[in-house]
Amino acid sequence: MGLLESVSGPHDLKRLDPRDLPALAAEIRDLLVSSVAGSGAGGHLGPNLGVVELTIALHRVFDSPHDPIVFDTGHQSYVHKMLTGRAGRFGTLRQEGGLSGYPSQAESEHDLVENSHASTALSYGDGLAKAVKLRGEGDRTVVAVIGDGALTGGMAWEALNNIAANKDLPLVIVVNDNGRSYSPTIGGLATHLAKLRVTQNYEQVLEFVKDRFGNVPVLYDTLHGIKKGIKDIIAPQAMFEDLGLKYVGPIDGHDEPAVESALRKAKAFGGPVIVHVLTTKGQGYTPAENHEEDCFHAPQPFDVVTGEEIPKAYGWTNVFSEEMVRIGAERADVVAITAAMLHPTGLAEFAEAYPERIFDVGIAEQHALTSAAGLALGGLHPVVAVYSTFLNRAFDQLLMDVALHRLPVTVVLDRAGITGDDGASHNGMWDLSILHVVPGLSVAVPRDASRLRELLRECLDVTDGPSVVRFPKGAVVREFEPVAALGGMDVLRSAPAEKDVLVVSVGPMAEVCLEAASLLAAQGIGATVVDPRWVRPLDPELVREAAAYKLVVVVEDNGRVGASGDAVARALRDADVDVPVRTYGIPQRFLDHAKRAKLLAEFGLTGQDLAREITEAIAKRSPALT
Amino acid sequence: MGLLESVSGPHDLKRLDPRDLPALAAEIRDLLVSSVAGSGAGGHLGPNLGVVELTIALHRVFDSPHDPIVFDTGHQSYVHKMLTGRAGRFGTLRQEGGLSGYPSQAESEHDLVENSHASTALSYGDGLAKAVKLRGEGDRTVVAVIGDGALTGGMAWEALNNIAANKDLPLVIVVNDNGRSYSPTIGGLATHLAKLRVTQNYEQVLEFVKDRFGNVPVLYDTLHGIKKGIKDIIAPQAMFEDLGLKYVGPIDGHDEPAVESALRKAKAFGGPVIVHVLTTKGQGYTPAENHEEDCFHAPQPFDVVTGEEIPKAYGWTNVFSEEMVRIGAERADVVAITAAMLHPTGLAEFAEAYPERIFDVGIAEQHALTSAAGLALGGLHPVVAVYSTFLNRAFDQLLMDVALHRLPVTVVLDRAGITGDDGASHNGMWDLSILHVVPGLSVAVPRDASRLRELLRECLDVTDGPSVVRFPKGAVVREFEPVAALGGMDVLRSAPAEKDVLVVSVGPMAEVCLEAASLLAAQGIGATVVDPRWVRPLDPELVREAAAYKLVVVVEDNGRVGASGDAVARALRDADVDVPVRTYGIPQRFLDHAKRAKLLAEFGLTGQDLAREITEAIAKRSPALT
Repeated sequence: MGLLESVSGPHDLKRLDPRDLPALAAEIRDLLVSSVAGSGAGGHLGPNLGVVELTIALHRVFDSPHDPIVFDTGHQSYVHKMLTGRAGRFGTLRQEGGLSGYPSQAESEHDLVENSHASTALSYGDGLAKAVKLRGEGDRTVVAVIGDGALTGGMAWEALNNIAANKDLPLVIVVNDNGRSYSPTIGGLATHLAKLRVTQNYEQVLEFVKDRFGNVPVLYDTLHGIKKGIKDIIAPQAMFEDLGLKYVGPIDGHDEPAVESALRKAKAFGGPVIVHVLTTKGQGYTPAENHEEDCFHAPQPFDVVTGEEIPKAYGWTNVFSEEMVRIGAERADVVAITAAMLHPTGLAEFAEAYPERIFDVGIAEQHALTSAAGLALGGLHPVVAVYSTFLNRAFDQLLMDVALHRLPVTVVLDRAGITGDDGASHNGMWDLSILHVVPGLSVAVPRDASRLRELLRECLDVTDGPSVVRFPKGAVVREFEPVAALGGMDVLRSAPAEKDVLVVSVGPMAEVCLEAASLLAAQGIGATVVDPRWVRPLDPELVREAAAYKLVVVVEDNGRVGASGDAVARALRDADVDVPVRTYGIPQRFLDHAKRAKLLAEFGLTGQDLAREITEAIAKRSPALT
Repeated sequence: MGLLESVSGPHDLKRLDPRDLPALAAEIRDLLVSSVAGSGAGGHLGPNLGVVELTIALHRVFDSPHDPIVFDTGHQSYVHKMLTGRAGRFGTLRQEGGLSGYPSQAESEHDLVENSHASTALSYGDGLAKAVKLRGEGDRTVVAVIGDGALTGGMAWEALNNIAANKDLPLVIVVNDNGRSYSPTIGGLATHLAKLRVTQNYEQVLEFVKDRFGNVPVLYDTLHGIKKGIKDIIAPQAMFEDLGLKYVGPIDGHDEPAVESALRKAKAFGGPVIVHVLTTKGQGYTPAENHEEDCFHAPQPFDVVTGEEIPKAYGWTNVFSEEMVRIGAERADVVAITAAMLHPTGLAEFAEAYPERIFDVGIAEQHALTSAAGLALGGLHPVVAVYSTFLNRAFDQLLMDVALHRLPVTVVLDRAGITGDDGASHNGMWDLSILHVVPGLSVAVPRDASRLRELLRECLDVTDGPSVVRFPKGAVVREFEPVAALGGMDVLRSAPAEKDVLVVSVGPMAEVCLEAASLLAAQGIGATVVDPRWVRPLDPELVREAAAYKLVVVVEDNGRVGASGDAVARALRDADVDVPVRTYGIPQRFLDHAKRAKLLAEFGLTGQDLAREITEAIAKRSPALT
């Protein structure tokens, strides 16, 4: 590890002899593979293996942080971290208190944008470059690095449209084109980029055309070819240039000197430039290069030699995946949509079984929802499967395009609640808050695998508006059978004679709620645990039942603000039922990366903590009520 | 009105002699001008004057509703309404119980998409066309009509990228290109479209090139010209075609036979086609054509002959506008962003005073927020001015790109609360609900003009995270001076000795809250009215004070779910203060269009209703507490 150890920051990298760079790249790849393989928390491998030479070139040409470098979907920033003094800490990757899997302002002045939602880098770059220009900081260049997958997101288009209108914006856009998002990038843009990939660069082609025109007999054929072909031959960069953007490329992204040279040219240009760099996801590590599904996008811990992943436990995603295949066989009207995450959302099996009924729309959650609205208007029942945190991108579309039109679209939210390892921007702690706002929306939260199967089917039977089912990341928990029914709700435990506390347990919080109820029983406090199954609309029986208790407690795996706790409290107020309510969930702040179980414990979402809280709440509650 | 009267639906239109169409168009324009001029509620005039011939052609070529027609930003659907049997009802436009200013499923089977948020039509079209294809309805063609302004929105890009990948999608995309959103469309795309506007069409240019190549001496010059020019000469449609989309155009949108012919060609094509139609906003009505600001985009009632608008009362927008100009003079770091609404948001004056500090980003709310994040990272303090309802489009960007990075961005929300006339999708009733969710965000709600000036300045002093100030549509109300301070809050009325009710009055609800308090006082019920000024974070004094009352009431002009009422209730619960709370606001459903005052009254948001509710709540509340 001699070379990498000698690089404490970009200044050291700039001093390295260019002949040493291939060896440095090899060291970086070794460290990438070993640290992701050995991390207890996995990590993003494929994307980082692909940007080794590119990142080296970036830090040799630009002067970070004076020249701000923004990485889109920051999981491609591992090499950047290694080159900015953090190589020695890769043993702590994604561990609590260790290196974040994304850029982190707290870690380094070289890190600016921390978040993991795609397609933002060009907008950040636009703003940063405008600021640099306005403040007269003429010697600074802003760099935005974005993948071809992220270019399918609408924000990237909005930004390009603006950047193109500012001819003297000091902004270099590096398109890291590996032809893939998680899996191969789709759509018209991908086809266009693919065309660019196989085409030689502009000047070379111009020579070629000149050569051919030198031979007069060829002229006639060439003219006939104009309509069909000449545009593709001589101007493959058309799309970007039509917008008014200077284009450089395509460049072999694993040829470090070539990338350096292109970046220097771009830096000197003085206006917005697109540098189109071709890379291979997983480059330099055979098991990743050969991995068809996603080139080891973000594997679990794996065997370094064979590349074999340590098998994951059977999880919520598997349950959803299986049930969708069954439903697909029964209902021809059910179609499915994914936003560039066919495998991670568990829709790959549905896609294989019903290839004409699956739509991968690219990293385009807005379009996913409104296209689903169109499918529903056309008589189908679409299922949009997306990670909880990414639904934020499509709130307006769910509200206005789907719910306002009362369309039967089912949204399936995986990774709801705390996900942990990926840090603040991946936690699915926002969905219930924004979903409660949407008129006419039904929201189901299954507590176990059986309930997921059951509620997914119930969602597909909702025909007068949208429905949502949300479940967490990870292995399925044990089954919790109801001891009774209360309206449409499941009673998981009935208080004995003394009705002290009604615990409303949302979805997978059943385990801790039941544990708390047992502990309370041991103290002589009678607790009923009810799982509402649907948190929206709330069952009217819940309000009726609550009136009989001294305290109502709501426990959920979502940010506390505006979620089911608030909904239950509001329902009680609206019915003039002034029983005290206490609500438990995730504190409304951005969470540092750590294990899910650790975070739940930190927030008091354990049986023991809940039991203690409830005991205290009963003791402290308004004296007039005792 | 002979011709228009004879058209009860598209079938009648198809039977009309083509020679009668200009006269029909003239009748339609007369009705557009007179009904918007005379409507008490205004309306969208310029956009509809521009699409008269286009809409006639659409309904002559396609067979609605069998061929579904989706209008992006449905305010361009007036002509469509007239041609589908609703011309006789234009006297009721935008009046309660009358014709909606947008498409409405309840009005007609010809109306599909009701909403007013831009850039959705292509996604709807994509979904509808996929459904048509999947269900084997081979004789149906889906039509999506979208303006050039709406193409600057990211969703449109996401949709185009998908549509291009489906070569046999039965979808005709009509780009209604008038070079304007509200005001002239901006960005690289606009420049590209402008280039297309002045270029002859493809086949003609090909002839021209062939002619020139016939003359051999020209050859060398032409070759030298290749690099710079040939692409622009022979392939101006490059951008769409590079994505793989068939392009027809540009067509003169006021030449009805030409538009019909292009649409017939497109319909027959059998795959996705873009028909590029050039129109003039305000066409055929001189005052609108000559109106530089926005071609009478959506005027107030006006004089038909002179086109002079009846002057609007001095409103909240004016106050914001004035204060921004003052602040601009004092602080060089303050910059402003609008999403294609420079005049409506009141930023035109700031733009005039500080042209280098204003950024119009197009209809691109996502980019607006993240570009603002970039500006803030670069050391500036951006003010993003946007209508409340459109902030929904940028929730994720506010949360992840701005708030997660604790960036000093101030969002100014105009048209917050009930706007009324524009119907369900324009009401600003969602913002407080989603804003309460965002960690580290400060939210101010001014009750009058002085407080707007003051709170805007306080927002600009928040440096450790984003801030929001929101205010309603319309004329400013009278000033409400505080009688005392409570922490950072204003006490507007203090209860006498008996502390019965604490009324938390959010922003402009001060008037009704004070009226209610007076009525309560007459009944011997002591009410304190406090305006928190900042609803997030809540002043800790509020909780302390609340503990002294028998009832806490929160009144706000926002959907009740997840808004300030829930926030106050949660703060009390969290502090073990179990005083009963009642929360008043807009019911959580989509509202039909009607006047703001009428809707507020309908929802019980009047002094009298509130006083009655409070009296009843005190009487009904938990007997144990009396």
